[in-house]
Formats: sequence, structure tokens, C-alpha cells
Amino acid sequence: MTSTSSPFRTAEQKLEDRAAKRNAVLRAAVQMFNARGFHATSLDDVAASLGISKPTIYHYLGNKDQILLECLKLGLQQLLEAVAQARTLPGSGFDRLVRFLECYAEVMMDDFGRCVIRTPQESLTPQSLPEYRDIKRKIDAAMRELIEEGIADGSIAALDSRLLSFTLAGALNWTARWHNPDGEQDVGEIASTMVDILANGFTPANRPPPG
Amino acid sequence: MTSTSSPFRTAEQKLEDRAAKRNAVLRAAVQMFNARGFHATSLDDVAASLGISKPTIYHYLGNKDQILLECLKLGLQQLLEAVAQARTLPGSGFDRLVRFLECYAEVMMDDFGRCVIRTPQESLTPQSLPEYRDIKRKIDAAMRELIEEGIADGSIAALDSRLLSFTLAGALNWTARWHNPDGEQDVGEIASTMVDILANGFTPANRPPPG
Repeated sequence: MTSTSSPFRTAEQKLEDRAAKRNAVLRAAVQMFNARGFHATSLDDVAASLGISKPTIYHYLGNKDQILLECLKLGLQQLLEAVAQARTLPGSGFDRLVRFLECYAEVMMDDFGRCVIRTPQESLTPQSLPEYRDIKRKIDAAMRELIEEGIADGSIAALDSRLLSFTLAGALNWTARWHNPDGEQDVGEIASTMVDILANGFTPANRPPPG
Repeated sequence: MTSTSSPFRTAEQKLEDRAAKRNAVLRAAVQMFNARGFHATSLDDVAASLGISKPTIYHYLGNKDQILLECLKLGLQQLLEAVAQARTLPGSGFDRLVRFLECYAEVMMDDFGRCVIRTPQESLTPQSLPEYRDIKRKIDAAMRELIEEGIADGSIAALDSRLLSFTLAGALNWTARWHNPDGEQDVGEIASTMVDILANGFTPANRPPPG
């Protein structure tokens, strides 16, 4: 235990420390962006909420535009992870899509996912926009792909995959607008109730010929 | 036909003329708000697009804040009309809700409905906000009421009406974000496909015990 009791931090401890500080700044910033809007948030307020100075924020993360991009990328990263995780699941295309949608809904109730929906993309600098749009496109394409795999294996009704994906994404994105992070209902419970309603809409057995 | 051929307009003609001018300004303004964002739109550009001067816009409608409020109220008015129309329909609560949702989706693809979703409500002046929020609350309450009537008469599955209404509203609100007004697919067709998917999710017969 000599290394942990030494007053000199190891290289690893320094990295961890730096990551913890970056995370604290990002979390404080994203919560203010979500509550007040990006333009109405000043880094002075973010710094004050952490008891640090603005130059300290610049040191760890850069300016407000860079912090916004970082927050949005963290939100999108969680959605990409949800895609990757769903893809490894056994079972039908339906099962994989449902699992993905449940994770997606939960991300939309987390600070960084909320920021993706609540911040108009015009708030990004023109330099950041292409990278951001590119990740978004990947997520949209992945959702469409999961739907199409389910249609192909017969576990999802043969619907217009584009309209289905917009319907599902819209229903779940909207939680970023109405969900109160201080509310009492469990996030996992909200996600599974909503996805259950939506999944009933694309189950083939539930779609008898009209009449 | 003497009155129409007279060079002097009747009081009625003057009113119609005034309404047509107001509508033209509102339509031009809302399209720019939707395309560029409220803050990035100048009334000079709106005036130029109509070949008129900014004072003419002030004369017919007032300043930019007043025009935004007018646009948003027109969007919400269409939703209130959809509620009123759905309420007069015979049939089950399910039928009335479905009809309401179809109209709702179509409003979200119209310029004024799009503006309701695309414009952050912080863009409104603090004076306008209470009136705006009040109309929004009425619409939310009406959707919840239609759902609860359907649950009561057994035509809608016994779901959490709050989560169901957020799921439905979110799915349809999102069309204001993705739908391209110059796209080829018919608005009525998009609305009925989406509502059909959603309605399948809350049909009682489609919700057998899990397993």
C-alpha cells in the first residue's frame, strides 16, 4: 500500500483526477444548458456552481462552444453504445429493436441525452456541426437497420421503416422535453411502459387485415 | 353586381382585404421563423419577401414578438379545433382519439403547427408566455381526456394515460422537426400511417397477457 499513502500521485491517479474534474464540469454545464438554455448559460455561473474559476474550466475543457460539443457527443455516445449493445443480443429483430428503444428512452432522460434534444443544433459552431450531424445520422441509420432486420425476419410488421423510425424516435425524444429529472417515477419504468406501447404498434400479430 | 363593380370598397371588402394582408404577412413570417429560427429572422427580410416595407408590417400586425405570438396562437388554434371536431364524433373513445391524432399530425406538418414545436418558448416575451402556456395546457388536458374516455368505455387499453399522451404527442410533435414541406409524400398519408402504428399500440385486443 506504499503507493497510495505516498503524497505523490501516480500517473494513473493524475489521469483519474483529471477525468473526474472534466466530468464534474460537464455535468454542471449540461444541467444549466438544459435548465436555462445554452445561450442564457454563462461559464461564470457554471464555475461558481463548482466553486472554481472560469480559467479552471478553460483549462480542463475549453470554451463554452467546446463544452457544448462535448456534452452533445456524450449524449450521442450513449445512443451509439445502445446500438452496439442491442446488436449483440440473440433473438429476433423485434427483440433487438425493443432493447435498443428502452436504452434510447433512458438516455433521453439523462442530462446529456436531454441536451441533444433541448439544444437547437444552430447553437453549435459551423466547425462542430458536420461531426455532430455525422454521429446523428449514424444513429438514425442504425435504428432504421434494426427495424429492417425485424421486418426481414418477420418479427416486425411490414411497415414503412422510415415513418416507423420517425414515430419511435419522436415519441422517445420527447421525453427530453417533458420528463422532470426530479420526478418520482422510475426512469426504467417510464422507458419500458412507453416502449411497450410503441412495440405493440409494430407487432405483426397485432396487425390484422383492416375491416 | 353594382357593389362589386364600384371603385369604392364596401366595409366587408375592406375587412377581407385587411385579413388577406395579415395572413400573407403571418405566412411569410412563420416560414422564415421555421427555416432560420425566430432570432435569426428579421422583419426586414419578411417585408422584402412580400415587396412591402417594415412599417407596413407594423401597421397590420405589430412588432416581431407580436407576430410570433400570433403565429403560435394560429398553430394552437388548429389543435383546439381538432379537439372540438373530435368531440362531436359518434363512436367510441378510441375513434374520437384516432381522429384527433390524425388532425394533430397534419397540423404539425403545417407552417403554424411547425412553429409551435420549432420555436423555443423562451422566444416569447414574459408577457405573452402565460397566455400561450394556458392554451397549451388546454390541449394537453383535452388529449388526456379523450384517452380517459376511451379507457372508460373499454375501447382503449387501460394504460397510464399520462405516459400514453406523452408518447402520442411526442411521436406526432416530432414530425414538425423532420417533415420536409417540399417532400413528395402526402401529408394525410403520413398522418394516417403514423396514427395507425400508434393506435395499434393502444388497442385493447392487441394487448394479451405477457408471455
